[in-house]
Amino acid sequence: MRDVAVLGVGCTNVGEHWGKSLRDLLFEASRRAMEDAGIEGIRKIEGLYVGNMCSGSIQGQEHLGALMADALGISGISACKVEAACGSGGMAFHQGVKAVASGLQDFILVAGVEKLSDASTPEATSALMMAEDSEYSAYVGASFVGLNALIHRLYMKEYGARAEHIAALAANGHNNAVNNQYAQYRFPTTPEKVLASPLVADPIHLLECAGNGDGAAAAIICPLERARQYSAEAIAVAASTTATDVFSLTERADILSFSASRMAAEAAYGRAKIGPQDIDVLEVHDAFTIVGTISLEDLGFVKKGEGAKFVHEGNIAIDGKLPTNTFGGLKARGHPVGATGIYQIAELTWQLRGQAGKNQVEGAEIGLAQNVGGIGSTASVHILRRAG
Amino acid sequence: MRDVAVLGVGCTNVGEHWGKSLRDLLFEASRRAMEDAGIEGIRKIEGLYVGNMCSGSIQGQEHLGALMADALGISGISACKVEAACGSGGMAFHQGVKAVASGLQDFILVAGVEKLSDASTPEATSALMMAEDSEYSAYVGASFVGLNALIHRLYMKEYGARAEHIAALAANGHNNAVNNQYAQYRFPTTPEKVLASPLVADPIHLLECAGNGDGAAAAIICPLERARQYSAEAIAVAASTTATDVFSLTERADILSFSASRMAAEAAYGRAKIGPQDIDVLEVHDAFTIVGTISLEDLGFVKKGEGAKFVHEGNIAIDGKLPTNTFGGLKARGHPVGATGIYQIAELTWQLRGQAGKNQVEGAEIGLAQNVGGIGSTASVHILRRAG
Repeated sequence: MRDVAVLGVGCTNVGEHWGKSLRDLLFEASRRAMEDAGIEGIRKIEGLYVGNMCSGSIQGQEHLGALMADALGISGISACKVEAACGSGGMAFHQGVKAVASGLQDFILVAGVEKLSDASTPEATSALMMAEDSEYSAYVGASFVGLNALIHRLYMKEYGARAEHIAALAANGHNNAVNNQYAQYRFPTTPEKVLASPLVADPIHLLECAGNGDGAAAAIICPLERARQYSAEAIAVAASTTATDVFSLTERADILSFSASRMAAEAAYGRAKIGPQDIDVLEVHDAFTIVGTISLEDLGFVKKGEGAKFVHEGNIAIDGKLPTNTFGGLKARGHPVGATGIYQIAELTWQLRGQAGKNQVEGAEIGLAQNVGGIGSTASVHILRRAG
Repeated sequence: MRDVAVLGVGCTNVGEHWGKSLRDLLFEASRRAMEDAGIEGIRKIEGLYVGNMCSGSIQGQEHLGALMADALGISGISACKVEAACGSGGMAFHQGVKAVASGLQDFILVAGVEKLSDASTPEATSALMMAEDSEYSAYVGASFVGLNALIHRLYMKEYGARAEHIAALAANGHNNAVNNQYAQYRFPTTPEKVLASPLVADPIHLLECAGNGDGAAAAIICPLERARQYSAEAIAVAASTTATDVFSLTERADILSFSASRMAAEAAYGRAKIGPQDIDVLEVHDAFTIVGTISLEDLGFVKKGEGAKFVHEGNIAIDGKLPTNTFGGLKARGHPVGATGIYQIAELTWQLRGQAGKNQVEGAEIGLAQNVGGIGSTASVHILRRAG
């Protein structure tokens, strides 16, 4: 098995891209990744993995692999779409890593894209609910935020967690997004303001939810030894793991912990031969504040029930113990579903290269990204590391 | 890179499964593959790739990886959906091969599933058109069969090919399907009867088109050396390759040849260190008779323009030079879109093991399967080989 590295990354702004198609967005992000990779032309790309969830139901378009390869002028390669709900981006990256690790291909483009603004809000809500079970959960009228509200409420009850402690994760994301040119919501906020926003599904407030956004992000990966030829600062993929959980919340032993995240994290730490204490910069999947909070626990950074307090004490700020979601996270950078996992990879890459500008985590050597599909049904964990 | 083998295969009948869900179908095929693999229980499975095209638009269900892993009682594994239109099955198999080849996982389940009968015929026609460009080809009202009719007509004009020669491919499939217990259309026919069926899109007749069908097929793959421990008759994956073409027909230099198939085949022969003359049994993607005919040419078995005559002369019959679609092909076994590529793998496996019953190709050692997405925009080629 070969070591794999990230050679280049790029993304579009996250927002409502009324004037751009799915194809335009993916093209823009991919070209930026190619420029960043410094490859002369694009002739080296041998494979394309497109992370996307909703193109079939919203755009009436499947077959994104061949479609996007052609749009990029690189048809003749191996290309497909990879789907794992909101975890599609991380899952696509994982498949790219396997392709390079296998020795079958050297240069792979992984690109995530989603365009929710082509749908009305109710349509987008229905499309996102395809992450859950259409014959059971969706059928009875549950929505994605509604299911997360159950978890949020139980978390508060079980651990005596305070609303403003959970809301602090949203404030952290917004404060970091101010300096992120690609972010959807570039305004600072406070836990108090978050809790003053309208309730969406009690006890979840509007400012605790990642909004609907359009965007694309891309990464070019290759064998580590090739990356060293092209770049003085190779970023190694120290681990790439994914896991699933029992699909329905109602059938899980514990809904206050996502076993997929726990399993993927444990496997990733083992593969990278490190522990949570070695992580310098972290990207967690905060589709809702409660999801980000529980993720901090599942990834091994704090004990169960202590995530919210840990956040409220300022530990995840850029100058804190565990700088988290330093470009805004899903909450404020935005959450263009199938692209989110690749945005995380791009952001970690910038941090490890020292290119994070005002939000730079000084001396960051190792970063971890966690991307989730459904209500924790799928998780991917990636550990990136400066390889010198 | 590790050598990979097929350890077990299974499938459902192809047909209209009104009483079974997407989940039921995939479960049935997967359990059969597990039984066939002879693994004690299912604890060894570490990864699941689901090949599917239309679940989002027809069933309102995405996230099939985690959903199906849970339905099979194997959550905790790495699972995702792989989509490449009608080539989703072959593409999913390709990703499974990469996962095993990489050394990251040993036992992988690849399962394709599609259920078109949940949609009305116009809805299914629209869903299948998502294989083509929604902003261009679909937008102007072209249908999938309509685009193939352009190719069919031009082929006849350019090469002076006769309608009954092209129709012979359908008759071959139907005659073979009679002995296939899983086939959708188990009646024999003749080129004359095919041409007497109604025109669907001139010059394509009803009996030249693969019908809409539901079904699922599954394969368990693992490292070749592990397969030898479990089975006296290991079937090696001698090559697994995929390629894309320029997406739109209108932008291709030649619409009478699919460069994706040519490129994938050339790469596959190179990897397996064989040539077309070494293939004992063949599965080609005959979504329409013209597609199967051209595929025989693109895969290197006959020269351009000679495919139809080759078929009509009886060369692809089970006792012919190149036994092709020995279980009926897409035409008569049926074409449950995302499952088709895995049906091909199952059928080749049965042939190479000597389990093909009345349709056995005597002494078959090497088989090739070609699966196509869109109008040749994506192709995968798999070469399987008896490994003793």
